[in-house]
Amino acid sequence: MNVSFLQELLNTVAEQGRQLLPRVLRSSDPADGVVELARALMSGRGEASGVALARQILDYYRVLEPDARRAFFRFLAEDLQPDPTQVAVAAEAYLQSKGESELARLQAAVDSPRHEFFRRLNLAPGATAEIVNMRRDLLRQPQSDAALGAVDTDLMKLLQSWFNRGFLVLRRIDWQTPAAILEKIIAYEAVHEIQGWDDLRRRLDPDDRRCFAFFHPALIDEPLIFVEVALMREPPQAISAVLQEERKAGAPVPDPVVAVFYSISNCQEGLKGISFGNFLIKQVVEELAKEKPSLKTFVTLSPIPHFARWLDRAEAAARTLPESEHDALVLLDDPGWQERPEEHQELKKALTKLAAHYFVNVKSPDGRPVDPVARFHLGNGARLERINWLGDASEKGLREAHGLMVNYRYEISEIERNHEAFANDGTVVVSRAVRALVKGVRAVPAEPEQALLPPPPSGNAQEPAAESDAA
Amino acid sequence: MNVSFLQELLNTVAEQGRQLLPRVLRSSDPADGVVELARALMSGRGEASGVALARQILDYYRVLEPDARRAFFRFLAEDLQPDPTQVAVAAEAYLQSKGESELARLQAAVDSPRHEFFRRLNLAPGATAEIVNMRRDLLRQPQSDAALGAVDTDLMKLLQSWFNRGFLVLRRIDWQTPAAILEKIIAYEAVHEIQGWDDLRRRLDPDDRRCFAFFHPALIDEPLIFVEVALMREPPQAISAVLQEERKAGAPVPDPVVAVFYSISNCQEGLKGISFGNFLIKQVVEELAKEKPSLKTFVTLSPIPHFARWLDRAEAAARTLPESEHDALVLLDDPGWQERPEEHQELKKALTKLAAHYFVNVKSPDGRPVDPVARFHLGNGARLERINWLGDASEKGLREAHGLMVNYRYEISEIERNHEAFANDGTVVVSRAVRALVKGVRAVPAEPEQALLPPPPSGNAQEPAAESDAA
Amino acid sequence: MNVSFLQELLNTVAEQGRQLLPRVLRSSDPADGVVELARALMSGRGEASGVALARQILDYYRVLEPDARRAFFRFLAEDLQPDPTQVAVAAEAYLQSKGESELARLQAAVDSPRHEFFRRLNLAPGATAEIVNMRRDLLRQPQSDAALGAVDTDLMKLLQSWFNRGFLVLRRIDWQTPAAILEKIIAYEAVHEIQGWDDLRRRLDPDDRRCFAFFHPALIDEPLIFVEVALMREPPQAISAVLQEERKAGAPVPDPVVAVFYSISNCQEGLKGISFGNFLIKQVVEELAKEKPSLKTFVTLSPIPHFARWLDRAEAAARTLPESEHDALVLLDDPGWQERPEEHQELKKALTKLAAHYFVNVKSPDGRPVDPVARFHLGNGARLERINWLGDASEKGLREAHGLMVNYRYEISEIERNHEAFANDGTVVVSRAVRALVKGVRAVPAEPEQALLPPPPSGNAQEPAAESDAA
Amino acid sequence: MNVSFLQELLNTVAEQGRQLLPRVLRSSDPADGVVELARALMSGRGEASGVALARQILDYYRVLEPDARRAFFRFLAEDLQPDPTQVAVAAEAYLQSKGESELARLQAAVDSPRHEFFRRLNLAPGATAEIVNMRRDLLRQPQSDAALGAVDTDLMKLLQSWFNRGFLVLRRIDWQTPAAILEKIIAYEAVHEIQGWDDLRRRLDPDDRRCFAFFHPALIDEPLIFVEVALMREPPQAISAVLQEERKAGAPVPDPVVAVFYSISNCQEGLKGISFGNFLIKQVVEELAKEKPSLKTFVTLSPIPHFARWLDRAEAAARTLPESEHDALVLLDDPGWQERPEEHQELKKALTKLAAHYFVNVKSPDGRPVDPVARFHLGNGARLERINWLGDASEKGLREAHGLMVNYRYEISEIERNHEAFANDGTVVVSRAVRALVKGVRAVPAEPEQALLPPPPSGNAQEPAAESDAA
Repeated sequence: MNVSFLQELLNTVAEQGRQLLPRVLRSSDPADGVVELARALMSGRGEASGVALARQILDYYRVLEPDARRAFFRFLAEDLQPDPTQVAVAAEAYLQSKGESELARLQAAVDSPRHEFFRRLNLAPGATAEIVNMRRDLLRQPQSDAALGAVDTDLMKLLQSWFNRGFLVLRRIDWQTPAAILEKIIAYEAVHEIQGWDDLRRRLDPDDRRCFAFFHPALIDEPLIFVEVALMREPPQAISAVLQEERKAGAPVPDPVVAVFYSISNCQEGLKGISFGNFLIKQVVEELAKEKPSLKTFVTLSPIPHFARWLDRAEAAARTLPESEHDALVLLDDPGWQERPEEHQELKKALTKLAAHYFVNVKSPDGRPVDPVARFHLGNGARLERINWLGDASEKGLREAHGLMVNYRYEISEIERNHEAFANDGTVVVSRAVRALVKGVRAVPAEPEQALLPPPPSGNAQEPAAESDAA
Repeated sequence: MNVSFLQELLNTVAEQGRQLLPRVLRSSDPADGVVELARALMSGRGEASGVALARQILDYYRVLEPDARRAFFRFLAEDLQPDPTQVAVAAEAYLQSKGESELARLQAAVDSPRHEFFRRLNLAPGATAEIVNMRRDLLRQPQSDAALGAVDTDLMKLLQSWFNRGFLVLRRIDWQTPAAILEKIIAYEAVHEIQGWDDLRRRLDPDDRRCFAFFHPALIDEPLIFVEVALMREPPQAISAVLQEERKAGAPVPDPVVAVFYSISNCQEGLKGISFGNFLIKQVVEELAKEKPSLKTFVTLSPIPHFARWLDRAEAAARTLPESEHDALVLLDDPGWQERPEEHQELKKALTKLAAHYFVNVKSPDGRPVDPVARFHLGNGARLERINWLGDASEKGLREAHGLMVNYRYEISEIERNHEAFANDGTVVVSRAVRALVKGVRAVPAEPEQALLPPPPSGNAQEPAAESDAA
Repeated sequence: MNVSFLQELLNTVAEQGRQLLPRVLRSSDPADGVVELARALMSGRGEASGVALARQILDYYRVLEPDARRAFFRFLAEDLQPDPTQVAVAAEAYLQSKGESELARLQAAVDSPRHEFFRRLNLAPGATAEIVNMRRDLLRQPQSDAALGAVDTDLMKLLQSWFNRGFLVLRRIDWQTPAAILEKIIAYEAVHEIQGWDDLRRRLDPDDRRCFAFFHPALIDEPLIFVEVALMREPPQAISAVLQEERKAGAPVPDPVVAVFYSISNCQEGLKGISFGNFLIKQVVEELAKEKPSLKTFVTLSPIPHFARWLDRAEAAARTLPESEHDALVLLDDPGWQERPEEHQELKKALTKLAAHYFVNVKSPDGRPVDPVARFHLGNGARLERINWLGDASEKGLREAHGLMVNYRYEISEIERNHEAFANDGTVVVSRAVRALVKGVRAVPAEPEQALLPPPPSGNAQEPAAESDAA
Repeated sequence: MNVSFLQELLNTVAEQGRQLLPRVLRSSDPADGVVELARALMSGRGEASGVALARQILDYYRVLEPDARRAFFRFLAEDLQPDPTQVAVAAEAYLQSKGESELARLQAAVDSPRHEFFRRLNLAPGATAEIVNMRRDLLRQPQSDAALGAVDTDLMKLLQSWFNRGFLVLRRIDWQTPAAILEKIIAYEAVHEIQGWDDLRRRLDPDDRRCFAFFHPALIDEPLIFVEVALMREPPQAISAVLQEERKAGAPVPDPVVAVFYSISNCQEGLKGISFGNFLIKQVVEELAKEKPSLKTFVTLSPIPHFARWLDRAEAAARTLPESEHDALVLLDDPGWQERPEEHQELKKALTKLAAHYFVNVKSPDGRPVDPVARFHLGNGARLERINWLGDASEKGLREAHGLMVNYRYEISEIERNHEAFANDGTVVVSRAVRALVKGVRAVPAEPEQALLPPPPSGNAQEPAAESDAA
């Protein structure tokens, strides 16, 4: 496709009205068209017909083949970047005088044209959701392509600005919620899979269940993150106490005292790295405290996704426990061990101690725990309350953590102090019970657990995509 | 107030829960407190208690005395700016290698900490509206203070990102609209003042009247910009045809063919320079065309706010018109001339010619017309359709434009072409009738009309605060 | 118009679809047409085209001249009544055997065809509001026309069924309410006139003001009844304490203990005799108690609309008070007496005693107080709490009750007992203070106060159209 | 339970406030309590505490055992009926003079106290739905109990008044509808069973599918009746064309010309006999015609629920067809015949002729067709358009109608004429094609088909509970 043909098309378009644009242009090849239109959007034309151009770019983008998609990202990476000459001139001028106006000129020179591109793209109705999906596609590109990293940096920065917590809306999800949203809850739940609509209803509808999600006004029907809560008499030790099917629906807890956050899932892959979980938990705590003044305790029931992987490295455990205790671990090699409670005594002792050690002493190179879910809740200011033996006896629970689960507790009066301790020197605040467990472990020099770790997130406490799925 | 006292307070606060923060801190002096808290918000503390800190900063800010407010802005200007050393280092590194990662580091170094500050401030519920008002206060500071300009640049950039057209919602304003919004329409109308609720109702409720506004989801009850429309049989020559009180309300126009945009007002001083009017007009055209297929013509009935001021400079007119015609202008010095139609013939001829000349030939140094309303509509791609003799005989209409008004016409098939012509070389597209008027004017070398002009806006076509109030 | 012409028209109509009906039939004369169409609606045709016929009848009805309207009501009265022969046959059959099926047949025979007529009329969208207005017109017909009474009986019975309390919706009215509803609040307020939108806002918007209304889902934008409430520290003695303009809006009552119902107005003349006030007050008490647990006392501040008229009949007062006290009343003939507090002492004593007597001892032939507002609140189970000297010094307040007002108190634990006492033997429950006043009055044999009374309402406690306007 | 105990309880209650009533009274036995409270509701007490009493009656009612429930209905039947003495007196007075006021008195005397009872019961929030369910329970009582018939008559009359079409709201049901309503659509669909949420979504969500329901404002989340519609290029001959799973969801019909009503289901057993279907279909036709102007034809695809039962009676068919054709019917005894198209030719000819005859000539004693679905659509003014061979090859379709289905067509210009013809003399309006089929059938004297029929409904065209489930 040559430029003048597109030019002509666009002229025709302009003469015949916005509504005709899509049809006329659809005859051209999306792979070329999307780049041509992107150029047009950045030109003066973008001012008069920006909405139509943006719409068409997004329509083209949606049908691009993988190669064309990648070519489009490369175009963004290579063509829409600051002009090196101008940057150099501005940098030199700044070094000369370091004045206000030189700084302003330098800021303008380094500002990525991609910001303006995405802002103009967002002119089209419904564009925000499509731009989020564009970032999802970008994140799925092979990491090797370093130039694309700069595109992601720009895009993420913009999304961070748009998805500022001040723009998010908390909504309760229940049986009155439109099906279009509910089916996404089923799809996005990543901790304890929802087994269809009946299971969903058991989690949303009963009097002692709650679900809350953050939404953004520009993303209709698309939850960003959601949390499932059970209102109970005491903190549960096992997920089955929360999810069992036969719960007497007829007998609601009259004055629940504990709110249990038993599942938190991020929904938008394209918003990866933009943290909502901290705000969600805290606002839900506020909402629940207002609605049910009987609630006094706010805890999670959380998985330990990396525990078994860590334990696998035999030497770690070996050096930590007395040999006698260590021997109990062989039971884990016995299929079906979890169903023979009469053999558990020693294993339970060994595993819970090791888990306490894993949380408190095992650190990644950034000085914080290796477990992503722990990093998330501890970073939010929660404390590690309890390690639950056979908290999750599902296949996944056994595979990931030999069935262990933990409760993290959000105590309003401690949150800031805990957070500071954790942020400043990686101190993991734990309950007395967990502390006792740690004492039973032989002290070994903390050694960074590099191999297991995902690259340390650049910023602050980030939640994993879901509690269970953090690597 | 010394820091350690605040420190202590905040520790107490953290131990007693967010809800106590405001009361405890209220005892301190807002003028100091606001700055201390701003520092805290930018520190690690901001991560755990950001929402509470942000809320308190805004509460303090609201009650600041003018001096304290200015001190706060100075703090933002001086303390929250990029670190010059780091900028210098990054600039030098960039000049050495001009690589991807050097560019990234330079971008990070020049990025203003104020962006992060305002983003964190926006954590508090309802903060967005207060940040917009903060910018309004900032714009009202004396211009002399150059350092504050950088604060405004940062803030405006952020607001531009947040108030991206993709996030705006078009809503019809009518008699079903909550009173809380309607009273703002009364307050913000800046072109033809609304004389109370009865007048408002006459503009919103009848079958042949429309009003539309853009809203942002984070600014409840706050229109950003609105336009008032009359559906008519033909383009009106005078505003009285639109606003007269005695209109037979009982007789709606059955199949209106002309939609008249007779008033456009911006509402938020704090969003000055962020342009919504272009998008608003175009989306309203679309909405109306869908709702009433009989509508074929979309025109404005607009004021010419600077015409009389321009004409005052005698020499301009003198050189333009033949002396005989020019003499007719003396009638303007006669109070009440507008009510003596029998004397109008010569004056009308002279004034309309001069107005045509004023629009087409008189340019500011940036090569575009001096009239702000003309700049706005022509920049949007409208054409100058008609000059209306005694279009507005109100005191204001006579004072600003000797009673003249104009129709700008939005012809969908021409919008892009007109816009390009105007943007590229300042060409003012006019109807044949206006062209004929211009021909009657003696050609004089176009001369920049500097004295009259507001400083040329940096970006694209910007609408005035209201059509009538652009200086 | 002859029938066959209409017949033909309707046939044409049926062939061309509902949407054409209005235009075609509009050419006929509404006065004849409305009756012809009413007959058609009651025939088999009504089943297939009921919606269109009903719509057209209502459209015709709206433009009927007074005479034609009356003729239409006469048609309903005379043509749409039970067939006397069938009633006679069914009555005789019943008298013979008094069986189930004879009763059923008699019930069917006496059932008024007007019920079916109005039910079919209600098929048209929006018809309910128009039927309510039809009853308003009917009530305005001269009373002499006895035959129309039966039409009203039928219509009222139907409306009573449709406007059953179970279908009403309580909505708070505030500054977020659409203007279309607010302007009706202004129009319908009948106790203390609302002086435009500013006054309205003072009653709705402040933190310590509430307004609630009942709505029916089929009457969009039309409140049925509303009550205005002030939240205060103590029961007010004068309406000026509630309505004064200069109230410090900035200083809301932090923990109000008294909710004052200072105005209740019915809105729909066409629903006269269908009582909503009792339900409204009780539900608002519940709502407020839930919203503000600090509220402990619920009182009205009410007018005494008939007191001055009663007192005018000199002999009543003469026989009641000692002569010395009675003489104080001459001050009332002195214009401006209310502004000379130094002269009030004796008058105050005399008037409040007389008012207490008026409430407690003066009865109409049905054994209940003569004052309509008193009948309403006492019938609801309230007690008479206090008589307020110069509670309303407005021209109206002076004219109706020499400035007196009263507080009725709704004490939840007494409501049923008070109601029973009042309903069974007309006992007026009063506070100790009022009882003391009554003791100061010479006992005279209670004598029915016939001349003053409106015809006794047939049913239970009915509120007046508004508290102030009950005759 | 003796009365004075309840009396005491209620007094206590009255003194302690409404909110205590439920707990206090719960100690008594519901079976006795419900009757005592019903008496109280009808007494003066009902005026002061009606809402609380009504709530308690409904709470008791819900937990009644079958026997107690029946006893409650008997109480309504026996204790809440007109006073025979008063009726007799009024009847005699009427027979004497037949005047206005005698008629009024007679109407009052025969008016069933049950009307007032149910109206007062409806005072409680949410009562309407419970009263509808009360009627469902009543309809399930053994028919033998004749006295209960009068209760049903009263209740149905009241519900007919409350559920007047003017109060119903049409709402589109789609994938944005709350799950609480959607699960009811699944439950209530009675024509073509919905196989879970995926199937539901296929019927609601695609661009060429619609579903509409009537709701009543007092019955939250409870559809009264709904219709499912497919937008197609031509009228379908078989239900599989509408419901097949593999429909290409991606390819919506661009300009559909036919709207197919393929399923209509009533939802509330307690509203049996109150007809909504006629209004629903006609309003949906209007809505669709407005939304999609390309739609020209409105047809159903309907079952013939009684055809096979009618045909079973051998002699009917025997006398109608020539012997040669009749013989083809033996194939029906062959399991799996429907899957052998090569053998269908004769059978198809015979069955479609018989079906045409069944619709046009076979009448019940009231002179209308025996098939309930036919009675419904023909009574609405539709015409019988086409008989579809193997329109429904499901087990149910084969069992009920040997796989036949029909299209009824709603032609706006014919509706009233068709309805009149059908209502006046049972004329079944058919298309030319069906007429041709009928001609091929030997004329036999129409003979009432009594045995098959449900008791003829008292009123007008009533739809079956669902199209498929009419007996």
